[in-house]
Amino acid sequence: MVKRYLDLRSLDEALTLLRDSFTIPRYTEKIPVVQAVGRVVAEPVFATYSVPEVSISAMDGIAVRSRDTIGASDRNPITLEHHARVNTGNVIPPEFDAVIMIEDVWEAGSSFQIRRAAAPWQHIRPAGEDIKENKLVLPRGHVIRPFDIGALVTYGITTIEVLSVRVGIIPTGSELVPPGVRPKPGQVVESNTVMAQVFLSQMGAHCTRLPIVQDEPDLIREAMRKAVRENDLVLISAGSSAGTRDFTESVIRSLGELVFHGVAVKPGKPVMLGKVEGKPVLGLPGYPLAAQTVLREFAAPLLESWGFAPAPRYPVTARLAQAITSDPGFDEFVPLFVGRIGTTLYGMPHGKGGFAQMATVKSNGYTHIPAPVEGYEAGTELEVLLTTDIGSIERTLFFTGTLDPALEELANLAHDNGLFIHATNPGNIAGFLALGSNTCHAAPLVLPAQPLPGIYLPLMRPLDTDDMAFIHIATIEMGIASRDGLGVADLTHARFINTRRETPSRMVLDSLLTAEGIDPSQVNGYPQEVHGPPAVAVAIKNGFADAGMCTSGIASANGLRFVPVAHEDYELAVRMEMLTDSRIKMLIGLIRSPAYQTLLEKTGGYATEKTGRVRCLSPDLSLTG
Amino acid sequence: MVKRYLDLRSLDEALTLLRDSFTIPRYTEKIPVVQAVGRVVAEPVFATYSVPEVSISAMDGIAVRSRDTIGASDRNPITLEHHARVNTGNVIPPEFDAVIMIEDVWEAGSSFQIRRAAAPWQHIRPAGEDIKENKLVLPRGHVIRPFDIGALVTYGITTIEVLSVRVGIIPTGSELVPPGVRPKPGQVVESNTVMAQVFLSQMGAHCTRLPIVQDEPDLIREAMRKAVRENDLVLISAGSSAGTRDFTESVIRSLGELVFHGVAVKPGKPVMLGKVEGKPVLGLPGYPLAAQTVLREFAAPLLESWGFAPAPRYPVTARLAQAITSDPGFDEFVPLFVGRIGTTLYGMPHGKGGFAQMATVKSNGYTHIPAPVEGYEAGTELEVLLTTDIGSIERTLFFTGTLDPALEELANLAHDNGLFIHATNPGNIAGFLALGSNTCHAAPLVLPAQPLPGIYLPLMRPLDTDDMAFIHIATIEMGIASRDGLGVADLTHARFINTRRETPSRMVLDSLLTAEGIDPSQVNGYPQEVHGPPAVAVAIKNGFADAGMCTSGIASANGLRFVPVAHEDYELAVRMEMLTDSRIKMLIGLIRSPAYQTLLEKTGGYATEKTGRVRCLSPDLSLTG
Repeated sequence: MVKRYLDLRSLDEALTLLRDSFTIPRYTEKIPVVQAVGRVVAEPVFATYSVPEVSISAMDGIAVRSRDTIGASDRNPITLEHHARVNTGNVIPPEFDAVIMIEDVWEAGSSFQIRRAAAPWQHIRPAGEDIKENKLVLPRGHVIRPFDIGALVTYGITTIEVLSVRVGIIPTGSELVPPGVRPKPGQVVESNTVMAQVFLSQMGAHCTRLPIVQDEPDLIREAMRKAVRENDLVLISAGSSAGTRDFTESVIRSLGELVFHGVAVKPGKPVMLGKVEGKPVLGLPGYPLAAQTVLREFAAPLLESWGFAPAPRYPVTARLAQAITSDPGFDEFVPLFVGRIGTTLYGMPHGKGGFAQMATVKSNGYTHIPAPVEGYEAGTELEVLLTTDIGSIERTLFFTGTLDPALEELANLAHDNGLFIHATNPGNIAGFLALGSNTCHAAPLVLPAQPLPGIYLPLMRPLDTDDMAFIHIATIEMGIASRDGLGVADLTHARFINTRRETPSRMVLDSLLTAEGIDPSQVNGYPQEVHGPPAVAVAIKNGFADAGMCTSGIASANGLRFVPVAHEDYELAVRMEMLTDSRIKMLIGLIRSPAYQTLLEKTGGYATEKTGRVRCLSPDLSLTG
Repeated sequence: MVKRYLDLRSLDEALTLLRDSFTIPRYTEKIPVVQAVGRVVAEPVFATYSVPEVSISAMDGIAVRSRDTIGASDRNPITLEHHARVNTGNVIPPEFDAVIMIEDVWEAGSSFQIRRAAAPWQHIRPAGEDIKENKLVLPRGHVIRPFDIGALVTYGITTIEVLSVRVGIIPTGSELVPPGVRPKPGQVVESNTVMAQVFLSQMGAHCTRLPIVQDEPDLIREAMRKAVRENDLVLISAGSSAGTRDFTESVIRSLGELVFHGVAVKPGKPVMLGKVEGKPVLGLPGYPLAAQTVLREFAAPLLESWGFAPAPRYPVTARLAQAITSDPGFDEFVPLFVGRIGTTLYGMPHGKGGFAQMATVKSNGYTHIPAPVEGYEAGTELEVLLTTDIGSIERTLFFTGTLDPALEELANLAHDNGLFIHATNPGNIAGFLALGSNTCHAAPLVLPAQPLPGIYLPLMRPLDTDDMAFIHIATIEMGIASRDGLGVADLTHARFINTRRETPSRMVLDSLLTAEGIDPSQVNGYPQEVHGPPAVAVAIKNGFADAGMCTSGIASANGLRFVPVAHEDYELAVRMEMLTDSRIKMLIGLIRSPAYQTLLEKTGGYATEKTGRVRCLSPDLSLTG
């Protein structure tokens, strides 16, 4: 076995090393207060003068001498000789010590009558009431908010000393092209350092992105030397795995000291920390989701330990809609989709791996699974940290059932209308169960025949058949896919690849075989199962098998030939009450829209005559309008 | 009575008018993605190309043909003829359809041996796995996060169309001076429009602040005309009350239509809305806290209804530490200090009125009291919206007891060290009670004599005397304040002003009178009570009374003469367990610091020999080290 990996540190250990191995840089800058929102006060700020500087009126009214008003009442009104008309904010002439509101005075010729005594200092803002000269306005470490800036300007402060830090960011990799350049095959746009720049700038860092450095140790060494000289913190992107061209570790060792390489965290395992000329050099993994984790869980806490403001966190408690497994010993950070069904928040893990930046784009939160945990059952309550506003929860819908490209197109259309559909593909049965247990908003189902097979009936419990509505998405053409255009008769001699029991394609196959009088044992490969039609198509395309059942859309997407054998209804099943839900109403509108029709036609293999029809399930299990 | 006010709209009514009276401006701008954090996507964004564009390796290892690997096992290793060494991200040559991880291969000469079959497509990222060309990346309305920008750049997108809105902000008022100019008496720095600019820019608005306009209807009209022509929304600051120089309403009427003037909201009652050339003109009240409320509760919801991202909200549930009253019929927004005592969050209202911008600066949250509510009892659980990070809760301490300038200096010093002390002044008795019920972190107490009067004993329950520790802040000089230097003998003929029963100054007075053989009935004004020493000093200064008891510090701050009669201990009482709390430990350090000593000396009237001493209460109620 070719050995490659490293002793992994625990996340806690790594964070302690990160925080404790360096002296805190004291880099500050003086900026105009109007640019200071979110920045951290570096030096205490004091009021330039008292506010107000002299006593002023707090009301529109008349300034009076309080001793002249003693004894005034409804039965004994007093007409004041000495007074001055004042508006709010006017200086109180020195002879007066109280203000009576204009509502409480009665005009009496050129003078005013009052009916209540005025207490000394009433409705007067004494000098220094808001703040006194040289008193503290903002302490060191305060994170400046928009409304603080109003106070600063009021107190005579127009520039402010805030924390800053110079961060040099080095992209490495011979496969990289700069942002805006279209990558050739095998090339990748250099985006992780852009993400790092944006992320750390939000915290108040001054980021400098260096030009892309090829995978040459000498070039990397030169770039690192320059970055360390000019900055307080250096991030170096990629080159931290154990591939044949990963030089970051050796370069760090040649210039300084390696603090750690490899942390038991997922994604982000290859994260690296070096100390060069006393300064931290943090190695980001190349995978975007791993780089994100290292930015959020390593770079941000380092800046926080240097006094920078913690990134805002929006924790919510959600119930897992689906089990998650986790590598014990690894701290894992898992993107989640958080949505609400009824009054319960659910969190749904994203299916794809660490490659898909779209997982981050589409998710609205993530959860941290601590190292000792091996996973969570569905239904477990977890803390989820939202990455969007809380409103995104109401814009997230969970679909559980059978997926098809027609649903993907619908989800894209919904996405553009502000709805996030997170669909999982465990099949029809799980879809019915999820609907019954109210753990999904809708179940996309491929229904093989009318009436429904009785097998589905017990799955719907505790729902009754008349608690459910079915929205027709499209009619799907199902058939035999192959490289060479095989038909039913060929199934007895070709290498067949099957789908799992009770999947719609398996049911179509079985009724087809029955109709043709072929026994399953005659089909070579009948017991060899893959998950569903997309896997069937890939297996055929790659020569693993010769034929299998899938939809015409999937077959043509994989460049396979296709012999149609049946039509099936692709339906979105919902609880009846959801028909009045504004989001489901919007979805029905989208399903019925010409735009969706066009998308289905472009994808191919769908009949759309019944698209958008909403039907109920009659007691004999047929769908009726 | 001089009539002045207006029919008030309810907040709900006003917000409906605000949202429904105008067509939504569709103003957008195209900006580099690196500047797009927090902005709202105006047009859907699609991937420029598929990512990856071709199939690439997901691992470091060897690319193989999966069909060559069928049957490999520990007992039947296979040596592969055809393979290619690939690193993560390398293009998979067309003849291969799987990757085997480097850990799972054994070198065998120039070839590799494997012991397990490779499934087709294993460890390969197929073309378009992350996203396919022309697929939606971000929908309209999405609020852009830092990590979205990594994805955008990866997918070939470097500029993006985002929502914007042009906001013209007009400051009016002849008393105003621009930011950075020191105001003369009666002048005010024009800061509300700066605050508006900063606040709305955060939401993505392009704000233009116009020059200050004098209180002249023609000038205001000209400025408003120009601002409406050049912007989608106009804010006009001040001139919206009913003073003699408030012209905003009449100017709006002359150019267009007044939608409302006056809303039952506190602060912010004079808020005004006009419609000029179809565009909204929002009138901000002049008081900073009222202007803030109108920005947050009117301007922000208007922009949200136009598609802008809602401002982040951090709601927490806190128990009111002190009752709040509220005007029924008014929606009130009350700044609160949120702190934690034990495991309970408490919210403490700020004492000062709407003038003090420092109330906003120092508070870390606010609560909304709906119109029908007349107030809340202490102990009520409320939703509080934090205005700072959640960590500020741990930096907030509540002190309940008797205030003195010595504590104010200590709080300022603590503030500069990141601790926010919110102190209320209900007196010694309430301080003991709060300590007993664990609703304050510490009780500042002016203790008139040693041993303590037995009256305090029952107040400490359920605490025992030995559960309490006393940290000595300073010894305070107490005496008779007057304009003319009156002494004890003068109290029988001067007009005296007293403090409330059981206040330390009242206790000193009573023991003084006893010692001098004077009966309280001989003291003219003995029954006339004000709240405490500061009010005594103001009453004397303004001629309401001739003499009263206060501290030498307060007397000299008010320019009064002072005859000392007693010394009292100013102590910070805490539960014994709090002595190990890091915040209380820091406070003790500050109390003992030379900086605090210097501040006390500068303030005057304190003896500091015992400052910083921590003592316990012995069973005979004397304080012992």
